Amino acid sequence: MNVEKITTSYVDAEKYPWIPFSPYSDVVFIKVLKIEPVSGTFVTLLKAPAGIQLPKHHHCGTVMVYTVKGSWRYLEHDWTAVPGSFVYETAASKHTPVAIAGAGDEIITLNIQVGDSLYMDDKDNIIAVENWKSVHQRHVEFHRSRGLVAPDVTDFSE
Amino acid sequence: MNVEKITTSYVDAEKYPWIPFSPYSDVVFIKVLKIEPVSGTFVTLLKAPAGIQLPKHHHCGTVMVYTVKGSWRYLEHDWTAVPGSFVYETAASKHTPVAIAGAGDEIITLNIQVGDSLYMDDKDNIIAVENWKSVHQRHVEFHRSRGLVAPDVTDFSE
Amino acid sequence: MNVEKITTSYVDAEKYPWIPFSPYSDVVFIKVLKIEPVSGTFVTLLKAPAGIQLPKHHHCGTVMVYTVKGSWRYLEHDWTAVPGSFVYETAASKHTPVAIAGAGDEIITLNIQVGDSLYMDDKDNIIAVENWKSVHQRHVEFHRSRGLVAPDVTDFSE
Amino acid sequence: MNVEKITTSYVDAEKYPWIPFSPYSDVVFIKVLKIEPVSGTFVTLLKAPAGIQLPKHHHCGTVMVYTVKGSWRYLEHDWTAVPGSFVYETAASKHTPVAIAGAGDEIITLNIQVGDSLYMDDKDNIIAVENWKSVHQRHVEFHRSRGLVAPDVTDFSE
Repeated sequence: MNVEKITTSYVDAEKYPWIPFSPYSDVVFIKVLKIEPVSGTFVTLLKAPAGIQLPKHHHCGTVMVYTVKGSWRYLEHDWTAVPGSFVYETAASKHTPVAIAGAGDEIITLNIQVGDSLYMDDKDNIIAVENWKSVHQRHVEFHRSRGLVAPDVTDFSE
Repeated sequence: MNVEKITTSYVDAEKYPWIPFSPYSDVVFIKVLKIEPVSGTFVTLLKAPAGIQLPKHHHCGTVMVYTVKGSWRYLEHDWTAVPGSFVYETAASKHTPVAIAGAGDEIITLNIQVGDSLYMDDKDNIIAVENWKSVHQRHVEFHRSRGLVAPDVTDFSE
Repeated sequence: MNVEKITTSYVDAEKYPWIPFSPYSDVVFIKVLKIEPVSGTFVTLLKAPAGIQLPKHHHCGTVMVYTVKGSWRYLEHDWTAVPGSFVYETAASKHTPVAIAGAGDEIITLNIQVGDSLYMDDKDNIIAVENWKSVHQRHVEFHRSRGLVAPDVTDFSE
Repeated sequence: MNVEKITTSYVDAEKYPWIPFSPYSDVVFIKVLKIEPVSGTFVTLLKAPAGIQLPKHHHCGTVMVYTVKGSWRYLEHDWTAVPGSFVYETAASKHTPVAIAGAGDEIITLNIQVGDSLYMDDKDNIIAVENWKSVHQRHVEFHRSRGLVAPDVTDFSE
């Protein structure tokens, strides 16, 4: 690693593609903005249509969520997140997101996540694991399949 | 600590006051959304008028910046941050923020910071230190001086 | 939270009990030294008899291991950890620990872990999850079952 | 960054040199074991003769200290750290270390630090700043001045 070159990194999210959040959904999309692999920190934008419910999941580390557009809630909590609000999820918390119907046509959130998400079925069996590696792979595969060069989202050099 | 009660925390930023970023400026304001004191992580919104330059500073840990409104740049970098963009600042980086004139009347950013900011004069002497403690104190004092109860931004219980 | 009281915390590990790492093993023991619940960071000592193999597991965040006594290795790596050595495990890494036979009667390591461990069977199915909550519960239950008061390992106040 | 190669890293501390902690002292030494530059995390061993007092300093982030050998304390706290004990220092804490005289000929600690240390004079003026960059530079310079190749302590690849 060329430590002399490590520096602040700028991401113009507008230029990044919306990538289908397959295989979970074909109407939910993510943009992968940045990944720091050692700690497993990854930053994404997520876009979902109003009215959709996502699978229940357990977070192994913290997740911070800034709501850019639309409204959503967790079935397990009383509050409803609105644009401009901030959510600080603690490690080993579990919840089921719902994008509120009628609050507009879509929900967009910025998500700063450390560690894995464990997706669960109705009986709390773990059915899928997402982390910096799976998100990175989805980012790379999406670009490769279209003959595009994926921006190196793990790069912190000038 | 009642560990049974630790859980995801929701902050409706609309309800939080803009607090002058004294003594540095009386036209720059912050909202203190959340503080995790052990690691020294603090989450703020910052509002500054277009055209203003803030003091050069050194960050001891990471800072993540999501631009909500307006444009800004660092004198030390070539890029200009626009609304919806994301900046990942690495530990021990140094820079001088400028809120771009003409890009609208104000700049608003969401800032997730770990550790201290060291503000410097023209000769790189450290003239002020900001961290979770100083930000917390500013939050508490602002409310106290107005006879208001400060929301406990360090609380992660239900 | 009384933020005025948050400060550096000292743990005299000698005074903490060895707790069986049930239900995985009755010859492996842990001491729970400190837990920071928001980020899911937990610090433990682990003691295992030489010659034992622990289940393969995946770490959701970083783990740092300082070897106090004895030798061990991961089946997936070439190196063998000796007393005084340091291991920095990256997020989403997977491995199978073996306490080396013949290197003495026991292995003791200091472990600083962020996030969950996912234990797997031979086919990589997740069969158990360990994190700050499960470790905290084991710590509390062990003391409760003996009529002892568990030290509050989540406390960072004076 | 070749993300496919990122993996757990092993450091045989025995093979690393003791580097003088200049310019602060010529009887205090450090070994630089690992650095993660993005978050500013660095892992060192520190060796000091019994009886010495180090300058007061402020930590911008967390520091975890495992005492390998000898006894030490902070002037600001009542406890004395002994071999095998663990200290979890919270962000923005300040203290003055003293290596206890009479407890043996030297003190050795393992230190896992995030962010900067700000060293202060008697009037709490900041007189020196140490962080991953200064520690990395000391590590590189020490080897270079002896015609040796410095191990790349920022490497997390196989």
